Amino acid sequence: MTFGIDSIITANKRISPYIIKTPLLRLENLDSYSGCRVFAKAECMQKTGSFKLRGALNKVLSLSREDMERDIVAVSSGNHGRAVAYAAKMFGLRATVIVPDTAVRVKIEAIKDLGAEIIQCRAEERYELADRLCRERNGVMVPPFDDFEIMAGQGTAGLEIIDQCPAIDRILVPVSGGGLLSGVACAVKTLSPRTKVYGICPEVLPHFRLSMEKGEPVSVEQRSSVADALASRQPGKKTFPLVRRYCDGIVAVSEEKIRQGMKLILTEGKLLAEPSSCIGAAALLSGSIPITKNENVCLLLSGGNVGLEQLEGFRDVTL
Amino acid sequence: MTFGIDSIITANKRISPYIIKTPLLRLENLDSYSGCRVFAKAECMQKTGSFKLRGALNKVLSLSREDMERDIVAVSSGNHGRAVAYAAKMFGLRATVIVPDTAVRVKIEAIKDLGAEIIQCRAEERYELADRLCRERNGVMVPPFDDFEIMAGQGTAGLEIIDQCPAIDRILVPVSGGGLLSGVACAVKTLSPRTKVYGICPEVLPHFRLSMEKGEPVSVEQRSSVADALASRQPGKKTFPLVRRYCDGIVAVSEEKIRQGMKLILTEGKLLAEPSSCIGAAALLSGSIPITKNENVCLLLSGGNVGLEQLEGFRDVTL
Repeated sequence: MTFGIDSIITANKRISPYIIKTPLLRLENLDSYSGCRVFAKAECMQKTGSFKLRGALNKVLSLSREDMERDIVAVSSGNHGRAVAYAAKMFGLRATVIVPDTAVRVKIEAIKDLGAEIIQCRAEERYELADRLCRERNGVMVPPFDDFEIMAGQGTAGLEIIDQCPAIDRILVPVSGGGLLSGVACAVKTLSPRTKVYGICPEVLPHFRLSMEKGEPVSVEQRSSVADALASRQPGKKTFPLVRRYCDGIVAVSEEKIRQGMKLILTEGKLLAEPSSCIGAAALLSGSIPITKNENVCLLLSGGNVGLEQLEGFRDVTL
Repeated sequence: MTFGIDSIITANKRISPYIIKTPLLRLENLDSYSGCRVFAKAECMQKTGSFKLRGALNKVLSLSREDMERDIVAVSSGNHGRAVAYAAKMFGLRATVIVPDTAVRVKIEAIKDLGAEIIQCRAEERYELADRLCRERNGVMVPPFDDFEIMAGQGTAGLEIIDQCPAIDRILVPVSGGGLLSGVACAVKTLSPRTKVYGICPEVLPHFRLSMEKGEPVSVEQRSSVADALASRQPGKKTFPLVRRYCDGIVAVSEEKIRQGMKLILTEGKLLAEPSSCIGAAALLSGSIPITKNENVCLLLSGGNVGLEQLEGFRDVTL
């Protein structure tokens, strides 16, 4: 299989009956903080609370008849696992989700509520454990990002942005393994070449920025960020070349800016988005994206799975 | 002056350059909780964080040249005061806002940030104090609800709802003094007579329900509700006859349901709306609105001025 706009258009036809076409919101109250015209693609309002459902559904709907008889195994910091558990339940499949022991409570509970089995382990061990489980249980893996069906599913968010507002000048996309960024960048740059697409990552996990500089995938030490969903420590083998081809740049932001971005989206944007998904707002606040005043800048708010107990940590953040 | 759809259309022309046409959002993730198709008019995303800017701007833009030389005085639990302070600042006027000593911190600070003077007093004394201030300072009062220009301004939210989604079957509007409800009901029932409009009030301040039953304005004892913006203890003299004429019913909901409504809007709707504005969701959860499964029900989310410290109180609320 090759990957391109056709993969994304096919994915869109496949999954659109089951997902929410989330709103593209104009967040005028953020303009004075960011120096541009701010929009948000509210994937926090997606079913299962994140964009991850797009890829998970596209993958499950692409499985062969034989694979549809097998158990599903997924590795996830939470959102992908919830999406896989939802898709599995929809088609009567059994799912096992392996999460790092740093996963936030609200995400683990949502996965359990959907009837999936949860296994917690150290972040470094999770892929090895998943491989072993697949072998032992004859399971089929639904990977979190490095898979063309997953990437095509995530790319449908980019299709929607260009459909909903062709005047968007720049799109800021959270990046970890690169599934969302590769799909969105491919969709957007094919349909609207003048629109710039950036990946935003935490400074503590800058593997995508380092990889772009070096021209090949680089892995970094596993560290934890307040952006809990951005937990990968290396780009995907399939995502990296596509990000390199389509993406206009990778920006890394500090933990402090991510926290400010979260507070801005919540208190001024009035949207409950999880810290990882507010990393684009953080990039705007840090001034590291080259913008001019009348530009239309879209923040891809990737998810909204955040517990009220987590919000207390943002009380004392000043904007 | 008489009051009708023309007043609201005039208000709309006057204020539309200065306000946000807030989005009408389809909140599909709320359907399973409420048994209908849920929409939200997101006035929490309005400038100043609430619908109150609509009325305040329409009033200030209608002032005579002489009145534009005088100081502005307003009585408010917070949102109207912030809107008046914003409008006053826009036109270089001085504003004094009288708030009850129960007003929430985030609202008081926002008013101060706009340069208005704040006076706090007991809720029962605030109108008397405002009258005295107006006399002493030759001030002009911008009333919170019982004024045709204010009501016409608030009614523009109703115009927008019917414009944005003519298929709306029912609209649930928070009610306290009746400014928003009278304006919205007049606009909606004139343009779309088949659409039902309800006012929702706290059970602890049921004056509007009692007044509708009795056929004349009734006042109740001042009590405080988690819905801090719904602090009036009697309907307005001008709002009451219009609510009686246009509104399809008043529903009172418990404090517990208001808290559940707030949690639902935040955690499933992903919107930061203040408790008062979530009272429509509370009415849906309480089952007191007669709905059928495929109906389109719009919650008017009147404001989003809520501090993060207030959210802690909703952690243990179960849906």
